[in-house]
Amino acid sequence: MASHFADRLCKAVKTKNTSLIVGLDPVYSRLPAAIRDHRQMNDEFDAAAAVDAIFDFCTQTMRIVAPMVPAVKINIAFFEKYLWEGLEMYYSLITEADDLGLEIIGDVKRGDIGHTAEVYASAHLENPELAGLEDTLAPDAITVNGYVGTDGIEPFADMAAKQGKGLFVLVRTSNPSAAAIQDFADGDGQRMYEKLAEIIAEVGQKEGRIGENGYSSVGMVVGGTAPAVTTALRKKYDKTWFLVPGYGSQGASAADCVRFCKPDGTGALINASRSIVYAYEKPQYKEQFSDDWKRCIEQAVIDAKVDLANAMQTLI
Amino acid sequence: MASHFADRLCKAVKTKNTSLIVGLDPVYSRLPAAIRDHRQMNDEFDAAAAVDAIFDFCTQTMRIVAPMVPAVKINIAFFEKYLWEGLEMYYSLITEADDLGLEIIGDVKRGDIGHTAEVYASAHLENPELAGLEDTLAPDAITVNGYVGTDGIEPFADMAAKQGKGLFVLVRTSNPSAAAIQDFADGDGQRMYEKLAEIIAEVGQKEGRIGENGYSSVGMVVGGTAPAVTTALRKKYDKTWFLVPGYGSQGASAADCVRFCKPDGTGALINASRSIVYAYEKPQYKEQFSDDWKRCIEQAVIDAKVDLANAMQTLI
Repeated sequence: MASHFADRLCKAVKTKNTSLIVGLDPVYSRLPAAIRDHRQMNDEFDAAAAVDAIFDFCTQTMRIVAPMVPAVKINIAFFEKYLWEGLEMYYSLITEADDLGLEIIGDVKRGDIGHTAEVYASAHLENPELAGLEDTLAPDAITVNGYVGTDGIEPFADMAAKQGKGLFVLVRTSNPSAAAIQDFADGDGQRMYEKLAEIIAEVGQKEGRIGENGYSSVGMVVGGTAPAVTTALRKKYDKTWFLVPGYGSQGASAADCVRFCKPDGTGALINASRSIVYAYEKPQYKEQFSDDWKRCIEQAVIDAKVDLANAMQTLI
Repeated sequence: MASHFADRLCKAVKTKNTSLIVGLDPVYSRLPAAIRDHRQMNDEFDAAAAVDAIFDFCTQTMRIVAPMVPAVKINIAFFEKYLWEGLEMYYSLITEADDLGLEIIGDVKRGDIGHTAEVYASAHLENPELAGLEDTLAPDAITVNGYVGTDGIEPFADMAAKQGKGLFVLVRTSNPSAAAIQDFADGDGQRMYEKLAEIIAEVGQKEGRIGENGYSSVGMVVGGTAPAVTTALRKKYDKTWFLVPGYGSQGASAADCVRFCKPDGTGALINASRSIVYAYEKPQYKEQFSDDWKRCIEQAVIDAKVDLANAMQTLI
């Protein structure tokens, strides 16, 4: 019997002593020169060379961060750019991450109605039992777009519960134009994202979806840039894990993000992507470690963990 | 210079004299016995055999329907079930459909913010220029989820315009629980889906996005089951192509669906998936054509076209 995703998250966050997770959004042209120069063809317009280089970079990056963080978030868009070659790499990275003991979030933003939602849930959360693909793993959790409502979310929640996995449904994103849709308010002042959060929380409370630690396998994605939103959602949804993008490059501070955490540090996964994986582009790390891009990434993780830990101290 | 997607649609709909399009949502267990029995391994749990059989079925189906309909809609979920093997098949089918002169809608429901939206747009709308993948085509249009707002839709609209392609953004779906989100109304009675439609229409009116026939390359997905919704949207958004799911198996009648068409028959693509591609399961066709599954599909397309044409007559 698979363990409960939300319980695994609690354990992983406590073991690594941080809510920080690392997002992989790899872009060939930003890879360290040492990797691009090593590739046989050294050509970003050659699919095989690019895929090789990106795989190498992501694998090495995960080995660096695995001892320090509970999870990685793999953004499938950056792999779909290389079509089926990229998708094969996405699944290879999931296997690598699993071997490293990381929880793996597939940032896939899938969502549809009825039967199609069931098929997406199977495709992205169920470990394939097909001959020829049987050694492949699906991620531990995925992101889901819930604009179609409950019956588009249920198939994902159902499959996740059966597989000991989880999902994070988009609630409030931190991009400039999100407000026009997500803050759309009814006559009583309730906002769209608040309504959607209610629906998601209801789905998450059904039988089999709450783990021993009291958290649901159905989480929410909420950007870290609006402290009032954060505080209200954290207070209202006690059983919810929040996946929080935007820390680092997207402008949310550690103080903003840790508001999603409970005092014991559980309840939120705070994602940093570019600020970690491209740390070697930053003068502060370049000066210190020169061309050693791995040390730059390692130090960026250490610094981010300290930054979040300090913010937690202030909060408590 | 690529032609304008919306103009190509006008031409295709007039040439084939119908708004009907065929959706491919292939499920191995429902394939005709003649195909399943032919496959070497005849085993739905063997990935290679299943992919082979599905590819064969979809190719044959497209050859049957290509002379009769303007476009096919390929639902990527059913291909993602077979991971990278399935994705390679999805792209092979796009090439096949293009050879058959069909417009191709990739039903991918992608959506995200900022840089990730740009990467998705490139991955799904731009014909790859990567060595090793350069013979691959992206579809003529894709479906997009716009819950994140304008800046999540813009990158798709931008890429579509550059490539002579299009997109259809989800506005109002026909599933039972859609209302809780999409009909969420503000103090003045404006509903969420109406607000989103406004945003999409605004994106679609920008420079380079309107074709010679007056239609935008940015369309909307609206289910066919609510006649009042349909009539209001058709009236308000004169420049919009509507992609209408739900005709046939999902309960929208021909009369409901043709309300999206203008009197000349343009303005809507009315999709039927299961009612066409599994026509050989229906007693009415089985009795007439016995095991000849191809004739069943052909007749189902003819019948659907007549049904829609009759409904158009009543409407005008």
